[in-house]
Amino acid sequence: MTTPREPNEALRRPRVGHIQFLNCLPIYWGLMRSGALLGVDLHKDTPDRLTAALLDGDLDIGPISLVEYLRRPEHLLLLPDLAVGSDGPVFSVNLVSTVEPRRLDGARVALSSTSRTGALLARMLLEDRYGVRPRYFTCPPDLTEMLLEAEAGVLIGDTALRARHEAPERGLVVTDLGEAWRDWTGLPMVFAVWAVRRDFAAAHPGLVKDVHDAFLASRELCLDELDTVAAVAARWEPFSAGTLAAYFRALDFSLGPRQIAGLREFAARAAAAGQAPALPPDGPSFWPA
Amino acid sequence: MTTPREPNEALRRPRVGHIQFLNCLPIYWGLMRSGALLGVDLHKDTPDRLTAALLDGDLDIGPISLVEYLRRPEHLLLLPDLAVGSDGPVFSVNLVSTVEPRRLDGARVALSSTSRTGALLARMLLEDRYGVRPRYFTCPPDLTEMLLEAEAGVLIGDTALRARHEAPERGLVVTDLGEAWRDWTGLPMVFAVWAVRRDFAAAHPGLVKDVHDAFLASRELCLDELDTVAAVAARWEPFSAGTLAAYFRALDFSLGPRQIAGLREFAARAAAAGQAPALPPDGPSFWPA
Repeated sequence: MTTPREPNEALRRPRVGHIQFLNCLPIYWGLMRSGALLGVDLHKDTPDRLTAALLDGDLDIGPISLVEYLRRPEHLLLLPDLAVGSDGPVFSVNLVSTVEPRRLDGARVALSSTSRTGALLARMLLEDRYGVRPRYFTCPPDLTEMLLEAEAGVLIGDTALRARHEAPERGLVVTDLGEAWRDWTGLPMVFAVWAVRRDFAAAHPGLVKDVHDAFLASRELCLDELDTVAAVAARWEPFSAGTLAAYFRALDFSLGPRQIAGLREFAARAAAAGQAPALPPDGPSFWPA
Repeated sequence: MTTPREPNEALRRPRVGHIQFLNCLPIYWGLMRSGALLGVDLHKDTPDRLTAALLDGDLDIGPISLVEYLRRPEHLLLLPDLAVGSDGPVFSVNLVSTVEPRRLDGARVALSSTSRTGALLARMLLEDRYGVRPRYFTCPPDLTEMLLEAEAGVLIGDTALRARHEAPERGLVVTDLGEAWRDWTGLPMVFAVWAVRRDFAAAHPGLVKDVHDAFLASRELCLDELDTVAAVAARWEPFSAGTLAAYFRALDFSLGPRQIAGLREFAARAAAAGQAPALPPDGPSFWPA
């Protein structure tokens, strides 16, 4: 046996964010099955908290809500080919309302505190597609609580998935915001992207490549095993394997030309609404810089 | 899509302990690579804290120091064929001393606060094999701190592994307690066993079988991939891949007839020393009861 190396900065695993929602379970499955999980210090949390951690420098690499990236892109580079989105229904980003969305003018709409991009997307659709001007407030992601004070609520993640199933028997209208966006613009919706902090990328280019490669490999691997992931997850989640498999298949973890077009369309509309600075003509900025 | 099932007790993943030391990394690797990690709520911690959690009912299944199991077996059943031990050198349970162990009579010996079985094993060896009577005290697992106040220290886990490498150039004597036990008794040493709480086993026999099967499968899988585990871990630990592979190969995760004989020999000596009640003639009690 040889003398141990001294522990040092080079031995610090990259701090990587992971969305603790069912929608990112396939990515986690792939990281696990490939063994790549051992090479990262994985922080599981909600999208809003991961976004804050990445912006504050408490994470090196992680998913970030698209709108939060658009608002504060300066310290970040996007990882190519990786996103959470959908090219049609997404199942887990929903507007749930007591009346049709077109009838929400002047109504109160509760926005989930865990959502950023979903909340803005709902506002864009309500105001620009359905032509109504509701009043918004932010609250915790609980549909029953929301509907005590509002005529509609925007939910994301597992809560949204559950609400989607429960809503019809409660006489509620569910608008799938991924589907509504595609119907409106003809483009895929990108809800979150993966970014690396510029300072980390400059200091540890090899680690960024490793993590990026691991995520891309994970995405490929999990696509081959989606039915297995769904079957395993169904043991512990209040959804059947079939429901979960359909949900996983609806998700789009890629960020190709069509997805980037969708991202740019959303960015342009967000900028027009005064919700984020405009993307530069050659934006977004991808790693490697 | 079907209506979601209500979240309920049946959907609670078993709370399973995992020793956050390099010595259990191969088991973790196997759980990860097989996908079994998704089916458990894994609590990573030091052996002493996992032991407390299992005894207090904060874990359902987990590794437990052998001596702690012997002291409080009444609420537990051991999982067959699973342990952490060695049939010879173990590398990571060490007595590090400024003089040969036989010269420690009347000396001060620091026992790591993270060790239970290793500490008792050291006392047995010092008193009954080397024929000395040191004075003991418990302190945090830091070799330098220990040797400020003592002529020897007992260390386990990663700290012990590191100390083993550093000791020779500091003129210290390292006694591998797994090796010393085998030389003394001719038997393997068992440092930790896996146990399930009797109440959990009675309520959820299927889950216990699943977790047990997953651990056995993990052990088989990791044995085939030890060099890969070592190579991946060497990127983040202050040891070379070769050192880690040798270390992993020295570990014995099985609990067959020879290991049970070693366990019973240790139990008899612990009882003779007044450190634990005697095992019943047909003990230990294995799951399924």
